[in-house]
Amino acid sequence: MQSLVRNHTLQEIMNDKGLAKLGDGLVNLCYSLAKSLVLGEATGEKVRDRVLAKAIREHRAYDYIGKRTDAGDAADAYEALMAYIWLTGRVGYEEMVQILREHLEIEQGMSRRMEAELATLAFIQLLNRVDEHLPRE
Amino acid sequence: MQSLVRNHTLQEIMNDKGLAKLGDGLVNLCYSLAKSLVLGEATGEKVRDRVLAKAIREHRAYDYIGKRTDAGDAADAYEALMAYIWLTGRVGYEEMVQILREHLEIEQGMSRRMEAELATLAFIQLLNRVDEHLPRE
Repeated sequence: MQSLVRNHTLQEIMNDKGLAKLGDGLVNLCYSLAKSLVLGEATGEKVRDRVLAKAIREHRAYDYIGKRTDAGDAADAYEALMAYIWLTGRVGYEEMVQILREHLEIEQGMSRRMEAELATLAFIQLLNRVDEHLPRE
Repeated sequence: MQSLVRNHTLQEIMNDKGLAKLGDGLVNLCYSLAKSLVLGEATGEKVRDRVLAKAIREHRAYDYIGKRTDAGDAADAYEALMAYIWLTGRVGYEEMVQILREHLEIEQGMSRRMEAELATLAFIQLLNRVDEHLPRE
């Protein structure tokens, strides 16, 4: 899996569209499992770009993206960082699910808007917790 | 994770829409990683319903679905079976990726149609290989 990682600076990783595509699947599955565990029943979700974009804009890595971004680009950057951390074996998906789950204060029947806000907070926590495994710059 | 599984006959599992949603993320991530490893570069893919529908219609489980299905329902059934096997700890995602990868004879630059046909064959193999972990009926 490590062989799939070719870029090693924050800017390169965050702009790697292949990593972003793989990270998209990773982030969706981790969120879906975390949400299922919090609600106590199996379910699935496509995490919206806006949620991930807000989360990465709170983080130091965002200073290194090196260009202006819309929500889609910013979400891609978040997904690419998670793929990098996962592929290099630094944090397994189980741990990502666990961190999201601990910080995901959603309930059954909540509005999608409220869920999106709470999901953003959980994704901020996830990025902070895995930050030590990212390149410094 | 096991607590998320509430149904235990093939028919119940294949018609469980919660499992199907979670399985959707699982199948997409496993396929994306298998494809990345085969091609030697990170990429991601949403597996099309038609691919999974064709794969499950080749399998004995399909006799138990208990209703007529369109491609969306049949794909949901495939996804639900994979989620069941994963959540009950019978087969990990790494092994699913490995089985897909072994049988995925795609190449760079192949048409989407050809890739879909080859993906179908890999998903048939995957279902056959995990079949022993499914309920008999």
